Amino acid sequence: MRIGVLGTGMVGKTIATRLAGLGHEVLMGSRTADNEQAAEWVAAVGGAARQGTFADAVANGEVVFNCTAGAASLDAIGSARPADLAGKTLVDVSNALDFSSGAPSLFVFGTDSLGERIQRRFPDTRVVKALNTVNHEVMVDPSRVPGEHDVFVCGDDEAAKATVASLLESFGWPEGSIVDLGDITASRGVEAYLLFWIRLRGVTGTGDFNIRVVGAPQSLPWKR
Amino acid sequence: MRIGVLGTGMVGKTIATRLAGLGHEVLMGSRTADNEQAAEWVAAVGGAARQGTFADAVANGEVVFNCTAGAASLDAIGSARPADLAGKTLVDVSNALDFSSGAPSLFVFGTDSLGERIQRRFPDTRVVKALNTVNHEVMVDPSRVPGEHDVFVCGDDEAAKATVASLLESFGWPEGSIVDLGDITASRGVEAYLLFWIRLRGVTGTGDFNIRVVGAPQSLPWKR
Repeated sequence: MRIGVLGTGMVGKTIATRLAGLGHEVLMGSRTADNEQAAEWVAAVGGAARQGTFADAVANGEVVFNCTAGAASLDAIGSARPADLAGKTLVDVSNALDFSSGAPSLFVFGTDSLGERIQRRFPDTRVVKALNTVNHEVMVDPSRVPGEHDVFVCGDDEAAKATVASLLESFGWPEGSIVDLGDITASRGVEAYLLFWIRLRGVTGTGDFNIRVVGAPQSLPWKR
Repeated sequence: MRIGVLGTGMVGKTIATRLAGLGHEVLMGSRTADNEQAAEWVAAVGGAARQGTFADAVANGEVVFNCTAGAASLDAIGSARPADLAGKTLVDVSNALDFSSGAPSLFVFGTDSLGERIQRRFPDTRVVKALNTVNHEVMVDPSRVPGEHDVFVCGDDEAAKATVASLLESFGWPEGSIVDLGDITASRGVEAYLLFWIRLRGVTGTGDFNIRVVGAPQSLPWKR
Protein backbone atom coordinates (compact mmCIF):
# COMPACT_ATOMS: atom_id res chain seq x y z
CA MET A 1 0.00 0.00 0.00
CA ARG A 2 1.16 3.59 -0.57
CA ILE A 3 1.21 5.35 2.79
CA GLY A 4 1.96 8.95 3.73
CA VAL A 5 3.42 9.70 7.12
CA LEU A 6 3.20 13.30 8.32
CA GLY A 7 5.94 14.16 10.79
CA THR A 8 9.62 13.37 11.19
CA GLY A 9 9.70 13.00 14.97
CA MET A 10 10.03 9.75 16.90
CA VAL A 11 6.43 8.75 16.28
CA GLY A 12 6.59 9.44 12.56
CA LYS A 13 9.91 7.66 12.13
CA THR A 14 8.86 4.64 14.15
CA ILE A 15 5.60 4.20 12.27
CA ALA A 16 7.17 4.91 8.88
CA THR A 17 9.95 2.40 9.51
CA ARG A 18 7.51 -0.28 10.57
CA LEU A 19 5.30 0.33 7.55
CA ALA A 20 8.29 0.18 5.22
CA GLY A 21 9.38 -3.06 6.87
CA LEU A 22 5.95 -4.50 6.12
CA GLY A 23 6.50 -3.73 2.45
CA HIS A 24 4.51 -0.54 2.10
CA GLU A 25 5.68 2.34 -0.07
CA VAL A 26 6.09 5.10 2.51
CA LEU A 27 6.53 8.79 1.82
CA MET A 28 7.53 10.79 4.89
CA GLY A 29 6.23 14.34 4.74
CA SER A 30 7.44 17.44 6.49
CA ARG A 31 7.21 21.20 6.09
CA THR A 32 9.97 21.23 3.51
CA ALA A 33 10.74 18.65 0.84
CA ASP A 34 14.40 18.45 1.91
CA ASN A 35 13.93 17.97 5.67
CA GLU A 36 17.13 16.57 7.18
CA GLN A 37 15.39 14.13 9.55
CA ALA A 38 13.37 12.73 6.69
CA ALA A 39 16.49 12.44 4.50
CA GLU A 40 18.23 10.45 7.24
CA TRP A 41 15.21 8.21 7.51
CA VAL A 42 15.11 7.61 3.75
CA ALA A 43 18.81 6.80 3.72
CA ALA A 44 18.45 4.39 6.64
CA VAL A 45 15.39 2.56 5.32
CA GLY A 46 16.16 2.58 1.60
CA GLY A 47 13.99 0.64 -0.80
CA ALA A 48 10.78 2.45 -1.66
CA ALA A 49 11.12 4.98 1.16
CA ARG A 50 10.76 8.56 -0.03
CA GLN A 51 10.44 12.02 1.44
CA GLY A 52 8.55 15.15 0.47
CA THR A 53 6.27 17.85 1.76
CA PHE A 54 3.18 17.21 3.86
CA ALA A 55 1.21 17.76 0.64
CA ASP A 56 3.31 15.15 -1.17
CA ALA A 57 2.70 12.64 1.63
CA VAL A 58 -1.05 13.17 1.47
CA ALA A 59 -1.10 13.08 -2.33
CA ASN A 60 0.87 9.83 -2.50
CA GLY A 61 -0.75 7.99 0.38
CA GLU A 62 -3.76 5.74 0.07
CA VAL A 63 -3.69 6.01 3.85
CA VAL A 64 -2.08 8.89 5.75
CA PHE A 65 -0.74 8.81 9.32
CA ASN A 66 -0.75 12.14 11.14
CA CYS A 67 2.27 11.94 13.43
CA THR A 68 2.87 15.67 13.76
CA ALA A 69 2.77 17.48 17.08
CA GLY A 70 -0.86 18.17 17.91
CA ALA A 71 -0.48 21.95 17.81
CA ALA A 72 0.88 21.73 14.25
CA SER A 73 -1.50 19.09 12.90
CA LEU A 74 -4.21 21.27 11.35
CA ASP A 75 -1.64 23.31 9.43
CA ALA A 76 0.28 20.24 8.32
CA ILE A 77 -2.79 18.46 6.99
CA GLY A 78 -4.18 21.70 5.62
CA SER A 79 -1.17 22.20 3.38
CA ALA A 80 -2.39 19.30 1.24
CA ARG A 81 -4.57 19.85 -1.81
CA PRO A 82 -8.25 19.47 -0.88
CA ALA A 83 -8.72 17.01 -3.76
CA ASP A 84 -6.00 14.80 -2.26
CA LEU A 85 -7.66 14.83 1.16
CA ALA A 86 -11.13 13.99 -0.12
CA GLY A 87 -12.17 10.47 0.80
CA LYS A 88 -8.75 9.64 2.22
CA THR A 89 -8.30 7.65 5.41
CA LEU A 90 -6.24 9.66 7.88
CA VAL A 91 -4.98 7.94 11.01
CA ASP A 92 -4.65 10.62 13.66
CA VAL A 93 -1.96 9.54 16.12
CA SER A 94 -1.45 13.04 17.50
CA ASN A 95 -2.10 14.35 20.98
CA ALA A 96 -3.26 17.78 22.13
CA LEU A 97 -0.40 18.09 24.59
CA ASP A 98 0.51 21.54 25.82
CA PHE A 99 3.67 21.90 27.88
CA SER A 100 3.70 25.69 27.79
CA SER A 101 3.25 25.95 31.55
CA GLY A 102 5.91 23.34 32.25
CA ALA A 103 3.46 20.69 33.44
CA PRO A 104 1.53 18.67 30.86
CA SER A 105 -1.90 19.89 29.88
CA LEU A 106 -4.09 19.69 26.77
CA PHE A 107 -4.94 22.59 24.47
CA VAL A 108 -8.35 21.14 23.66
CA PHE A 109 -10.33 18.94 25.91
CA GLY A 110 -13.68 18.01 27.46
CA THR A 111 -16.44 18.74 24.99
CA ASP A 112 -14.04 18.85 22.04
CA SER A 113 -10.83 17.16 20.98
CA LEU A 114 -8.06 17.35 18.43
CA GLY A 115 -9.47 14.37 16.53
CA GLU A 116 -12.79 16.18 16.16
CA ARG A 117 -11.11 19.44 15.15
CA ILE A 118 -9.30 17.61 12.38
CA GLN A 119 -12.48 15.88 11.24
CA ARG A 120 -14.42 19.19 11.27
CA ARG A 121 -11.73 21.07 9.38
CA PHE A 122 -11.42 18.32 6.75
CA PRO A 123 -14.96 16.97 6.50
CA ASP A 124 -14.26 14.95 3.34
CA THR A 125 -11.39 13.09 5.01
CA ARG A 126 -12.08 9.90 6.93
CA VAL A 127 -10.34 10.51 10.24
CA VAL A 128 -9.59 7.57 12.51
CA LYS A 129 -8.05 8.32 15.89
CA ALA A 130 -5.71 5.52 16.93
CA LEU A 131 -2.48 4.63 18.70
CA ASN A 132 -2.16 7.91 20.62
CA THR A 133 -2.53 6.05 23.96
CA VAL A 134 0.76 4.15 23.80
CA ASN A 135 4.45 4.86 23.46
CA HIS A 136 5.71 5.03 19.87
CA GLU A 137 7.60 1.75 20.14
CA VAL A 138 4.57 -0.06 21.53
CA MET A 139 2.42 1.35 18.70
CA VAL A 140 4.20 -0.77 16.13
CA ASP A 141 5.30 -3.66 18.37
CA PRO A 142 2.73 -4.42 21.07
CA SER A 143 4.70 -7.52 22.09
CA ARG A 144 7.06 -5.16 23.95
CA VAL A 145 4.36 -5.21 26.64
CA PRO A 146 3.79 -8.75 27.93
CA GLY A 147 0.26 -10.10 28.19
CA GLU A 148 -3.01 -8.78 26.85
CA HIS A 149 -3.48 -5.04 26.43
CA ASP A 150 -5.59 -2.84 24.23
CA VAL A 151 -5.44 -0.22 21.53
CA PHE A 152 -8.36 2.06 20.75
CA VAL A 153 -9.82 3.32 17.49
CA CYS A 154 -12.63 5.76 16.84
CA GLY A 155 -13.99 7.58 13.84
CA ASP A 156 -17.11 8.27 11.85
CA ASP A 157 -16.34 6.00 8.89
CA GLU A 158 -16.64 2.25 9.41
CA ALA A 159 -14.67 1.29 6.31
CA ALA A 160 -11.81 3.57 7.32
CA LYS A 161 -11.78 2.03 10.80
CA ALA A 162 -11.63 -1.44 9.25
CA THR A 163 -8.65 -0.38 7.13
CA VAL A 164 -6.88 1.00 10.19
CA ALA A 165 -7.70 -2.12 12.23
CA SER A 166 -6.05 -4.22 9.49
CA LEU A 167 -2.93 -2.09 9.67
CA LEU A 168 -2.91 -2.39 13.48
CA GLU A 169 -3.17 -6.17 13.15
CA SER A 170 -0.21 -6.11 10.80
CA PHE A 171 1.72 -4.24 13.52
CA GLY A 172 0.99 -7.17 15.85
CA TRP A 173 -2.15 -6.02 17.66
CA PRO A 174 -4.40 -9.07 18.02
CA GLU A 175 -7.90 -8.52 16.65
CA GLY A 176 -9.37 -8.89 20.15
CA SER A 177 -7.19 -6.09 21.50
CA ILE A 178 -8.50 -3.46 19.08
CA VAL A 179 -11.32 -1.61 20.83
CA ASP A 180 -13.70 0.37 18.63
CA LEU A 181 -14.91 3.28 20.77
CA GLY A 182 -17.41 4.51 18.19
CA ASP A 183 -17.45 7.86 16.47
CA ILE A 184 -14.76 10.53 16.44
CA THR A 185 -16.09 12.18 19.63
CA ALA A 186 -14.40 9.34 21.52
CA SER A 187 -11.17 11.24 20.82
CA ARG A 188 -12.08 13.26 23.91
CA GLY A 189 -11.55 10.19 26.06
CA VAL A 190 -8.37 8.84 24.53
CA GLU A 191 -6.82 12.31 24.40
CA ALA A 192 -7.73 13.10 28.04
CA TYR A 193 -6.24 9.74 29.00
CA LEU A 194 -2.83 11.11 28.03
CA LEU A 195 -2.65 13.00 31.32
CA PHE A 196 -3.08 9.68 33.10
CA TRP A 197 -0.65 7.97 30.73
CA ILE A 198 2.07 10.50 31.51
CA ARG A 199 1.72 9.77 35.22
CA LEU A 200 1.76 6.02 34.67
CA ARG A 201 4.86 6.53 32.48
CA GLY A 202 6.55 8.12 35.48
CA VAL A 203 5.43 5.44 37.93
CA THR A 204 6.38 2.49 35.73
CA GLY A 205 9.64 4.10 34.63
CA THR A 206 9.18 2.84 31.08
CA GLY A 207 7.17 3.49 27.95
CA ASP A 208 6.65 -0.25 27.62
CA PHE A 209 3.35 -0.41 29.45
CA ASN A 210 -0.28 -0.19 28.49
CA ILE A 211 -3.75 -0.78 29.85
CA ARG A 212 -6.23 -3.55 29.29
CA VAL A 213 -9.97 -3.10 29.60
CA VAL A 214 -11.30 -5.79 31.91
CA GLY A 215 -14.91 -6.90 32.32
CA ALA A 216 -17.32 -9.73 31.80
CA PRO A 217 -16.98 -11.26 28.30
CA GLN A 218 -20.45 -10.14 27.21
CA SER A 219 -19.47 -6.53 27.93
CA LEU A 220 -16.30 -6.82 25.85
CA PRO A 221 -17.60 -8.18 22.54
CA TRP A 222 -14.40 -7.25 20.73
CA LYS A 223 -12.38 -9.72 22.83
CA ARG A 224 -12.85 -13.03 21.10
CA MET B 1 -13.06 2.40 63.08
CA ARG B 2 -15.21 5.54 63.18
CA ILE B 3 -15.69 6.75 59.62
CA GLY B 4 -17.42 9.81 58.23
CA VAL B 5 -18.96 9.67 54.78
CA LEU B 6 -19.76 12.98 53.11
CA GLY B 7 -22.59 12.68 50.61
CA THR B 8 -25.87 10.81 50.39
CA GLY B 9 -25.78 9.93 46.69
CA MET B 10 -25.12 6.50 45.22
CA VAL B 11 -21.40 6.66 45.90
CA GLY B 12 -21.83 7.77 49.51
CA LYS B 13 -24.49 5.19 50.22
CA THR B 14 -22.57 2.35 48.60
CA ILE B 15 -19.36 3.13 50.47
CA ALA B 16 -21.14 3.80 53.77
CA THR B 17 -23.08 0.52 53.53
CA ARG B 18 -19.93 -1.44 52.77
CA LEU B 19 -18.05 0.17 55.65
CA ALA B 20 -20.93 -0.50 58.04
CA GLY B 21 -21.01 -4.12 56.86
CA LEU B 22 -17.33 -4.39 57.70
CA GLY B 23 -18.15 -3.34 61.28
CA HIS B 24 -17.15 0.30 61.14
CA GLU B 25 -19.16 2.99 62.92
CA VAL B 26 -20.29 5.13 60.02
CA LEU B 27 -21.77 8.61 60.22
CA MET B 28 -23.26 9.80 56.94
CA GLY B 29 -23.04 13.56 56.59
CA SER B 30 -25.06 15.92 54.46
CA ARG B 31 -25.93 19.61 54.32
CA THR B 32 -28.64 19.18 56.93
CA ALA B 33 -28.69 16.85 59.94
CA ASP B 34 -32.10 15.48 58.97
CA ASN B 35 -31.44 14.66 55.31
CA GLU B 36 -34.06 12.22 54.06
CA GLN B 37 -31.67 10.08 52.02
CA ALA B 38 -29.38 9.72 55.01
CA ALA B 39 -32.33 8.84 57.25
CA GLU B 40 -33.36 6.09 54.83
CA TRP B 41 -29.83 4.80 54.82
CA VAL B 42 -29.63 4.76 58.62
CA ALA B 43 -32.95 2.92 58.83
CA ALA B 44 -31.84 0.37 56.25
CA VAL B 45 -28.43 -0.31 57.74
CA GLY B 46 -29.26 -0.06 61.44
CA GLY B 47 -26.64 -0.91 64.05
CA ALA B 48 -24.11 1.82 64.62
CA ALA B 49 -25.11 3.76 61.48
CA ARG B 50 -25.82 7.43 62.14
CA GLN B 51 -26.46 10.59 60.23
CA GLY B 52 -25.60 14.24 60.73
CA THR B 53 -24.14 17.27 59.04
CA PHE B 54 -20.96 17.29 57.00
CA ALA B 55 -19.30 18.80 60.08
CA ASP B 56 -20.60 15.96 62.26
CA ALA B 57 -19.24 13.38 59.82
CA VAL B 58 -15.79 14.99 59.83
CA ALA B 59 -15.80 15.41 63.60
CA ASN B 60 -16.75 11.80 64.24
CA GLY B 61 -14.61 10.13 61.63
CA GLU B 62 -11.08 8.91 62.15
CA VAL B 63 -11.16 8.64 58.37
CA VAL B 64 -13.49 10.66 56.14
CA PHE B 65 -14.67 9.73 52.64
CA ASN B 66 -15.59 12.65 50.40
CA CYS B 67 -18.39 11.29 48.22
CA THR B 68 -20.02 14.61 47.41
CA ALA B 69 -20.38 15.90 43.87
CA GLY B 70 -17.10 17.48 42.91
CA ALA B 71 -18.54 20.97 42.49
CA ALA B 72 -19.85 20.84 46.08
CA SER B 73 -16.84 19.20 47.73
CA LEU B 74 -14.90 22.25 48.91
CA ASP B 75 -17.98 23.72 50.59
CA ALA B 76 -18.97 20.40 52.14
CA ILE B 77 -15.55 19.76 53.64
CA GLY B 78 -15.18 23.43 54.52
CA SER B 79 -18.25 23.32 56.73
CA ALA B 80 -16.29 21.20 59.21
CA ARG B 81 -14.43 22.78 62.13
CA PRO B 82 -10.76 23.34 61.18
CA ALA B 83 -9.67 21.52 64.33
CA ASP B 84 -11.59 18.45 63.22
CA LEU B 85 -9.95 18.50 59.79
CA ALA B 86 -6.41 18.88 61.11
CA GLY B 87 -4.39 15.72 60.66
CA LYS B 88 -7.38 13.77 59.41
CA THR B 89 -7.19 11.32 56.54
CA LEU B 90 -9.68 12.31 53.85
CA VAL B 91 -10.33 9.89 51.01
CA ASP B 92 -11.36 11.98 48.03
CA VAL B 93 -13.59 9.86 45.80
CA SER B 94 -15.06 12.85 43.96
CA ASN B 95 -14.74 13.81 40.33
CA ALA B 96 -14.58 17.23 38.73
CA LEU B 97 -17.37 16.39 36.31
CA ASP B 98 -19.21 19.23 34.64
CA PHE B 99 -22.31 18.38 32.62
CA SER B 100 -23.42 21.99 32.20
CA SER B 101 -23.00 21.85 28.41
CA GLY B 102 -24.77 18.51 28.12
CA ALA B 103 -21.64 16.55 27.26
CA PRO B 104 -19.27 15.54 30.06
CA SER B 105 -16.34 17.82 30.79
CA LEU B 106 -14.26 18.68 33.85
CA PHE B 107 -14.32 21.98 35.72
CA VAL B 108 -10.66 21.69 36.66
CA PHE B 109 -8.06 19.84 34.67
CA GLY B 110 -4.58 19.75 33.20
CA THR B 111 -2.19 21.58 35.50
CA ASP B 112 -4.58 21.38 38.46
CA SER B 113 -7.19 18.98 39.80
CA LEU B 114 -9.94 18.71 42.35
CA GLY B 115 -7.79 16.55 44.61
CA GLU B 116 -5.13 19.26 44.66
CA ARG B 117 -7.69 22.00 45.25
CA ILE B 118 -8.96 20.14 48.28
CA GLN B 119 -5.43 19.56 49.56
CA ARG B 120 -4.51 23.24 49.07
CA ARG B 121 -7.68 24.51 50.72
CA PHE B 122 -7.23 22.17 53.72
CA PRO B 123 -3.46 21.93 54.07
CA ASP B 124 -3.63 20.23 57.48
CA THR B 125 -5.81 17.42 56.14
CA ARG B 126 -4.20 14.34 54.66
CA VAL B 127 -5.96 13.99 51.32
CA VAL B 128 -5.79 10.67 49.48
CA LYS B 129 -7.40 10.49 46.06
CA ALA B 130 -8.82 7.02 45.46
CA LEU B 131 -11.62 5.01 43.88
CA ASN B 132 -12.83 7.77 41.54
CA THR B 133 -11.88 5.67 38.49
CA VAL B 134 -14.47 2.94 38.96
CA ASN B 135 -18.22 2.58 39.27
CA HIS B 136 -19.54 2.87 42.83
CA GLU B 137 -20.42 -0.82 43.04
CA VAL B 138 -16.96 -1.85 41.85
CA MET B 139 -15.37 0.48 44.41
CA VAL B 140 -16.51 -1.71 47.28
CA ASP B 141 -16.68 -5.05 45.47
CA PRO B 142 -13.96 -5.38 42.85
CA SER B 143 -14.92 -9.03 42.29
CA ARG B 144 -17.82 -7.72 40.18
CA VAL B 145 -15.17 -7.37 37.46
CA PRO B 146 -13.58 -10.72 36.64
CA GLY B 147 -9.81 -11.03 36.52
CA GLU B 148 -7.09 -8.64 37.58
CA HIS B 149 -7.73 -4.92 37.49
CA ASP B 150 -6.39 -1.92 39.33
CA VAL B 151 -7.34 0.88 41.67
CA PHE B 152 -5.21 4.00 42.08
CA VAL B 153 -4.23 6.04 45.11
CA CYS B 154 -2.27 9.26 45.37
CA GLY B 155 -1.55 11.76 48.09
CA ASP B 156 1.20 13.59 49.90
CA ASP B 157 1.06 11.60 53.15
CA GLU B 158 2.45 8.07 53.12
CA ALA B 159 0.76 6.99 56.38
CA ALA B 160 -2.61 8.20 55.12
CA LYS B 161 -2.13 6.28 51.87
CA ALA B 162 -1.30 3.15 53.87
CA THR B 163 -4.52 3.58 55.88
CA VAL B 164 -6.53 3.96 52.70
CA ALA B 165 -4.82 0.97 51.10
CA SER B 166 -5.85 -1.14 54.12
CA LEU B 167 -9.44 -0.03 53.72
CA LEU B 168 -9.29 -0.84 50.00
CA GLU B 169 -7.96 -4.30 50.81
CA SER B 170 -10.87 -4.77 53.20
CA PHE B 171 -13.19 -3.92 50.28
CA GLY B 172 -11.61 -6.79 48.36
CA TRP B 173 -8.89 -5.05 46.35
CA PRO B 174 -5.84 -7.35 46.34
CA GLU B 175 -2.68 -5.63 47.55
CA GLY B 176 -1.10 -6.03 44.11
CA SER B 177 -3.96 -4.18 42.45
CA ILE B 178 -3.52 -0.99 44.47
CA VAL B 179 -1.31 1.35 42.44
CA ASP B 180 0.36 4.21 44.30
CA LEU B 181 0.73 7.03 41.78
CA GLY B 182 2.69 9.26 44.12
CA ASP B 183 1.73 12.69 45.38
CA ILE B 184 -1.61 14.44 45.09
CA THR B 185 -0.74 15.97 41.70
CA ALA B 186 -1.51 12.54 40.23
CA SER B 187 -5.16 13.50 40.74
CA ARG B 188 -4.80 15.27 37.38
CA GLY B 189 -4.39 11.92 35.69
CA VAL B 190 -7.08 9.93 37.45
CA GLU B 191 -9.57 12.78 37.13
CA ALA B 192 -8.85 13.31 33.42
CA TYR B 193 -9.29 9.56 32.94
CA LEU B 194 -12.97 10.00 33.76
CA LEU B 195 -13.62 11.31 30.26
CA PHE B 196 -12.22 8.04 28.94
CA TRP B 197 -14.10 6.03 31.57
CA ILE B 198 -17.41 7.55 30.50
CA ARG B 199 -16.79 6.46 26.91
CA LEU B 200 -15.76 2.97 27.97
CA ARG B 201 -18.91 2.85 30.12
CA GLY B 202 -20.93 3.46 26.98
CA VAL B 203 -19.04 0.92 24.89
CA THR B 204 -19.15 -1.86 27.48
CA GLY B 205 -22.76 -1.11 28.42
CA THR B 206 -22.03 -1.71 32.10
CA GLY B 207 -20.35 -0.11 35.07
CA ASP B 208 -18.78 -3.45 35.88
CA PHE B 209 -15.53 -2.89 34.03
CA ASN B 210 -12.15 -1.51 34.87
CA ILE B 211 -8.63 -1.25 33.54
CA ARG B 212 -5.46 -3.09 34.40
CA VAL B 213 -2.01 -1.63 33.96
CA VAL B 214 0.09 -4.10 32.00
CA GLY B 215 3.86 -4.18 31.68
CA ALA B 216 7.00 -6.08 32.52
CA PRO B 217 7.03 -7.19 36.20
CA GLN B 218 9.98 -4.96 37.09
CA SER B 219 8.04 -1.92 35.90
CA LEU B 220 5.03 -2.83 38.06
CA PRO B 221 6.60 -3.28 41.50
CA TRP B 222 3.22 -3.08 43.22
CA LYS B 223 2.05 -6.29 41.51
CA ARG B 224 3.45 -9.02 43.69
